[in-house]
Amino acid sequence: MSQTLPATIPVSLFEACADSIAGTARELAALGWTPATSSNFSMRIDAEHAAITVSGRHKGRLGRNDIMLVGLSGHAVGTDARPSAETALHTQIYRRWPEVRAVLHTHSRTQSVASRLFAGDGVIRLQGWELQKAIAGHHTHEDTLEIPVFPNTQHMPELVARIDAWLDAGKTLHAYLIDGHGIYTWGRDMAEAERHLEALEFLLGCELDLKKLRAS
Amino acid sequence: MSQTLPATIPVSLFEACADSIAGTARELAALGWTPATSSNFSMRIDAEHAAITVSGRHKGRLGRNDIMLVGLSGHAVGTDARPSAETALHTQIYRRWPEVRAVLHTHSRTQSVASRLFAGDGVIRLQGWELQKAIAGHHTHEDTLEIPVFPNTQHMPELVARIDAWLDAGKTLHAYLIDGHGIYTWGRDMAEAERHLEALEFLLGCELDLKKLRAS
Amino acid sequence: MSQTLPATIPVSLFEACADSIAGTARELAALGWTPATSSNFSMRIDAEHAAITVSGRHKGRLGRNDIMLVGLSGHAVGTDARPSAETALHTQIYRRWPEVRAVLHTHSRTQSVASRLFAGDGVIRLQGWELQKAIAGHHTHEDTLEIPVFPNTQHMPELVARIDAWLDAGKTLHAYLIDGHGIYTWGRDMAEAERHLEALEFLLGCELDLKKLRAS
Amino acid sequence: MSQTLPATIPVSLFEACADSIAGTARELAALGWTPATSSNFSMRIDAEHAAITVSGRHKGRLGRNDIMLVGLSGHAVGTDARPSAETALHTQIYRRWPEVRAVLHTHSRTQSVASRLFAGDGVIRLQGWELQKAIAGHHTHEDTLEIPVFPNTQHMPELVARIDAWLDAGKTLHAYLIDGHGIYTWGRDMAEAERHLEALEFLLGCELDLKKLRAS
Repeated sequence: MSQTLPATIPVSLFEACADSIAGTARELAALGWTPATSSNFSMRIDAEHAAITVSGRHKGRLGRNDIMLVGLSGHAVGTDARPSAETALHTQIYRRWPEVRAVLHTHSRTQSVASRLFAGDGVIRLQGWELQKAIAGHHTHEDTLEIPVFPNTQHMPELVARIDAWLDAGKTLHAYLIDGHGIYTWGRDMAEAERHLEALEFLLGCELDLKKLRAS
Repeated sequence: MSQTLPATIPVSLFEACADSIAGTARELAALGWTPATSSNFSMRIDAEHAAITVSGRHKGRLGRNDIMLVGLSGHAVGTDARPSAETALHTQIYRRWPEVRAVLHTHSRTQSVASRLFAGDGVIRLQGWELQKAIAGHHTHEDTLEIPVFPNTQHMPELVARIDAWLDAGKTLHAYLIDGHGIYTWGRDMAEAERHLEALEFLLGCELDLKKLRAS
Repeated sequence: MSQTLPATIPVSLFEACADSIAGTARELAALGWTPATSSNFSMRIDAEHAAITVSGRHKGRLGRNDIMLVGLSGHAVGTDARPSAETALHTQIYRRWPEVRAVLHTHSRTQSVASRLFAGDGVIRLQGWELQKAIAGHHTHEDTLEIPVFPNTQHMPELVARIDAWLDAGKTLHAYLIDGHGIYTWGRDMAEAERHLEALEFLLGCELDLKKLRAS
Repeated sequence: MSQTLPATIPVSLFEACADSIAGTARELAALGWTPATSSNFSMRIDAEHAAITVSGRHKGRLGRNDIMLVGLSGHAVGTDARPSAETALHTQIYRRWPEVRAVLHTHSRTQSVASRLFAGDGVIRLQGWELQKAIAGHHTHEDTLEIPVFPNTQHMPELVARIDAWLDAGKTLHAYLIDGHGIYTWGRDMAEAERHLEALEFLLGCELDLKKLRAS
């Protein structure tokens, strides 16, 4: 892949973001959360650009050549590579929240199963878990943390519109699930995005375990 | 093991296939999908030959000497080594589809349990999972992906006949399970075969989890 | 972080404890028991001090600078770093038992789920498991091992008072759970604390599995 | 630990067995099957001696000094070290079967839970699994493989007597479980013992999964 950068973006900045994405992807792949070349990851470069994984690569083996530049409307910049089909979901987040610098989308078994199980409700409500405090702005296990579950579609503009509708209704959002698919979460830097992802995976897993056990 | 190659097969080709098989086997063994020397793997060498794992070896510790040459009728070529008892299932696939270059047979707990659970139905139907798109030719989660479950037998020709019957009925096939046993899947190269295997393991695991949770 | 030590504490002693804490934390993080920067660990330094993890760090990546000194009333000593919010639970243990030299608090999925499931009973009773013998003072699987489950609160003095009340009632205590949160356990040295933690995680996991299976 | 060997036992033989035990133990510990210093392992040295793990050591960190010599009546030979409390179960196997050269006793969660679940029946019957063929002398999934479950006791002679009674009744035995405790299995060499252990862990796990799923 050949990536040409706009003059305003230093090579060192792009490379630092690409390395951070590749490093995080390796860790998440080792956990089994990116099966069969699924999942995609990005970082904000500036007010108008993000670095994002090229479509279809094995997420445990990413190098700098597997990361490309996109504008915040979702188009490739300075490369012929094809960005992930879900790039529009990443750029929507960067447009909505100027402070967000990293977006993670994974596909763990727990995430996929939880999304199917709660798709009918359209939301998962987490309450009573100490680890809710790992989500920015949450200070007690007594809060209720709402994770919406949106219907899956191969047509990205539909998903973008549903997410906009949720936000335009004034609801807070730290993460969302897509039915039968996976999770999106983000943060002010890669470390916060990772912490959110790790906490949400844990909390969804706990909810599923508890549901099985309470039935027994 | 001493392997003599026909003059038409370059040593470098055989060794490249053997190394690819051994490398993939190590990864799958580390995931626990090849318990107790089970499982077998192969790659097509040319229109008439395949390289396949020798019977009974530990799949996490394969070297070039654990891979042997067979003809597509299943007989050993240029070696006294004994090919896997299930070699006939591999060669059937290479004979049916000239474009297939790699066949993987594993034995994960999820695969074995799913095969028992759905043996009565004779088929597992996967629907609504984004990861179905990891299977070649599938472009949406809305499709139904059918994985047949064939009865187990120690008599390979019976199994070969059942698989032929399925295909002769005009049904598509990307993978099959054998009851109480494991999965077979394949691809146009090792990377595609691995992607198929990883996706199917994930999807079967999701189905089992969802079944437990929906009952609770 | 800059840590100044009182004249009575040799640098080598503090560093040895910090290294032991960091090493144990890396092992527990690799097991997935410290998700999203949760969990905290400490070692006794002398009759009046303990070394404890600084709040909010990734437990798989601790170095000496992530460990700080506290007095046994819970205040930072010789540093501006902020100790874990739960420091009071560690120092309570060191004050109660002069022979305790290591305290581990983790947050595994099994621990969190078990705490929710048994919160109503206020206690988990383990009986009939050989591994109960891994807990100091237990010599047979026929004993009953009681692990109390205390309600969670963000107000530490409440928790401290509940634990004091349990002990003042003359009950033995080797570990406790906090509802929706995690486990605390300890030992006469780091090896014993680790052995207790490993055994309790195992026993809680067995109890949950058995509960699911007996219902089925 | 200081180990003096009888003149009839070459140092190199003892060391080779000790290294084999330590290597296998590290692999099994990494799988989580030896929690909290539990489990013990041995190899036959000659017609009258075996090498066995010293009591209470961490099974992931064994060196030659953690392996000692015992006579087949269970007494320490040439050392003051204390053999495992369960040494009598190992030596019983070596006395019964001259061809057995390795005995493995582990403590996985699956083994412990299965033993509790089937303790009332006194036996687990495995049928219909291809992997039964990994057990020596089994050639088809159509056989029934019986694993007895003996009641746990801290008094080893009771257990020895129950196992003798099973064998004196003419029943075959490849492995047994002890209620709430773990599994014993063995083989003509370490590789066969490991293959048996790996297969049995897999089969017990499959049985438990299937039981949960069939109820749902």
